[in-house]
Amino acid sequence: MMSRNSPDEIILSEGEALGLARDFLTAHGLSAAQAEAVASALCAAQRDGCASHGLQRLPGTLDTMAHPAFNRMADPRPEAVTPAVTRVDADYGFSILAAERGLPSLVANARRLGVAILAVNNGFHSTALWPVVEKIATHGLAALSMNPTHDWVAPSGGTKGTLGTNPIAFAWPRAGHPPYVFDFATSAAARADIALHRQRGQEIPAGWGLDPQGRPSTDPAAVLAGAMLPFGGHKGSALATMIELLAGPFIGDRTSRQSAAFDKGAKAAPCHGELILAFNPDLFQFDSAQPDLEGTPQDAAEDLFSRITQQGARLPGDRRYAARAAAAQHGIRVPKALYERILRLFPQQE
Amino acid sequence: MMSRNSPDEIILSEGEALGLARDFLTAHGLSAAQAEAVASALCAAQRDGCASHGLQRLPGTLDTMAHPAFNRMADPRPEAVTPAVTRVDADYGFSILAAERGLPSLVANARRLGVAILAVNNGFHSTALWPVVEKIATHGLAALSMNPTHDWVAPSGGTKGTLGTNPIAFAWPRAGHPPYVFDFATSAAARADIALHRQRGQEIPAGWGLDPQGRPSTDPAAVLAGAMLPFGGHKGSALATMIELLAGPFIGDRTSRQSAAFDKGAKAAPCHGELILAFNPDLFQFDSAQPDLEGTPQDAAEDLFSRITQQGARLPGDRRYAARAAAAQHGIRVPKALYERILRLFPQQE
Repeated sequence: MMSRNSPDEIILSEGEALGLARDFLTAHGLSAAQAEAVASALCAAQRDGCASHGLQRLPGTLDTMAHPAFNRMADPRPEAVTPAVTRVDADYGFSILAAERGLPSLVANARRLGVAILAVNNGFHSTALWPVVEKIATHGLAALSMNPTHDWVAPSGGTKGTLGTNPIAFAWPRAGHPPYVFDFATSAAARADIALHRQRGQEIPAGWGLDPQGRPSTDPAAVLAGAMLPFGGHKGSALATMIELLAGPFIGDRTSRQSAAFDKGAKAAPCHGELILAFNPDLFQFDSAQPDLEGTPQDAAEDLFSRITQQGARLPGDRRYAARAAAAQHGIRVPKALYERILRLFPQQE
Repeated sequence: MMSRNSPDEIILSEGEALGLARDFLTAHGLSAAQAEAVASALCAAQRDGCASHGLQRLPGTLDTMAHPAFNRMADPRPEAVTPAVTRVDADYGFSILAAERGLPSLVANARRLGVAILAVNNGFHSTALWPVVEKIATHGLAALSMNPTHDWVAPSGGTKGTLGTNPIAFAWPRAGHPPYVFDFATSAAARADIALHRQRGQEIPAGWGLDPQGRPSTDPAAVLAGAMLPFGGHKGSALATMIELLAGPFIGDRTSRQSAAFDKGAKAAPCHGELILAFNPDLFQFDSAQPDLEGTPQDAAEDLFSRITQQGARLPGDRRYAARAAAAQHGIRVPKALYERILRLFPQQE
């Protein structure tokens, strides 16, 4: 493919995009297994129109791999902590490979027990959560995932960065449809979005953050130096705190503050844990004690989705699935400047 | 106690408040076990300053008990669905007794497996979620609970009531402190709060709801006839959808739409399921592969709480714990009008 449809953009096939990212990472010394996992997640995001988690993260992987603790040869192996809980130590490589290596055990446990946990530890996290929960849903399971980041976000009523931007993602499997999937940060805005406003010289909306003195501010530079705010006031703040606890201390891993301290100014991807829960939605059925309920629980879920879309509201994954369909037909769009930057960042060959 | 400190208020001891609620419920034919569970939860809310989930719910229990499906003699028993999942069919009584009966199994399973589920089915739900998650935390476990309600809330981008007000509650156990506990509705406001504005002839804030034509409105009557809105825009909407799925179809129980249909205008408490997850926070410890992490995961959680409170932000449970301490010293405050209304609603004796 590799054709152009505009002077600012090139079009890659999925294989080309994957090959570019994989070659970039292995050329910089990353193990083939880690490179494959990271490249797949970044290309999936690029394909789905999620530029922020797409190939633009590739140059940043060099900062992450330059962190003194980063392990290019990490070879994570799942271990059973209990019959319901699997742990995979990412061993200071990228967390995505550890998550993928743990999925078979998570899926088997959740099928058997109805609920199971995968705890990923000590992983550098530079990928979105949705590719993993979506993959779990393709096995017919619901999935919930969350992780801390760095302590950029002030709690509701506070002034100082304490919580992470703490994303939470959820997937529910659907027969005949791609899964219902959401993935959002519990901060009011993404840090990258605030940085983009600064780059463009634009103000940010009120409610996104505080300046270093703890005052509400619409100056992106002041907010990046001060503190971001959680979405949804005290409710979003509480949710972000829960994520700190469940994806930090509960799984024996870093809070957002501890992750930021571990970075020591390297500007690597945050290194921390990731909690993934899986649920078997076939465990329960309606029964004769519920004469008002017809069909199956899956029918009830589909009815809910229909009622949401029939009134003109979108399901959270719809935009991504539309971009995915377009990419399947026309290829994956990559900004030309990014593409050329990636090529320039390949190590110099003798 | 039963003393008065103002003409509008009476003060009851905890035993008096509990006795009043228990006697009211049993006088109306509710089984002793259900009456004890409901009375305890309502009195705990009254004691903790949560008037909306306190004794003012007692008169409404008469509407719930008048629902044709309500079972005054329900005697819920836990059953093991898998080694990790306990189910308790509330058998169309109040859900709180079913939840309490399931707790020992939930706690034992979570301790052993690290994670466990309690699914409560077919319960009329008139109590807050926090008393149950707080109780789980006193066993040294973290807990997460959620349930649908009735389909009063439009999805983000929509216009029609489809989602419930879908509360979510979380507790984390703390050594030497009462647990960290939050419990909030995923709607922008509580339905009772909108009704209170209507009663007082006050406008509601923008963002709480839509009129029957789907237009943003600050008229409480129009919003009660139209649709409420989720908190936090599309993020809160996604979270409310997840709660529909996990506390509805996943556990083989009603969505908020199905619960509203089941009510058939009885104005009973919503009848649906409730999902409770418990987590063992002692399962993981920091290890030698994490030389940057000192102390225990519990210390890291305490450090997080300290950093929140030291900057002047509140932990979600703080106001309740302060009210509880005041009640322990001075008794439980009950509006005189409510107290007299409850007395009048006792069944007439021969």
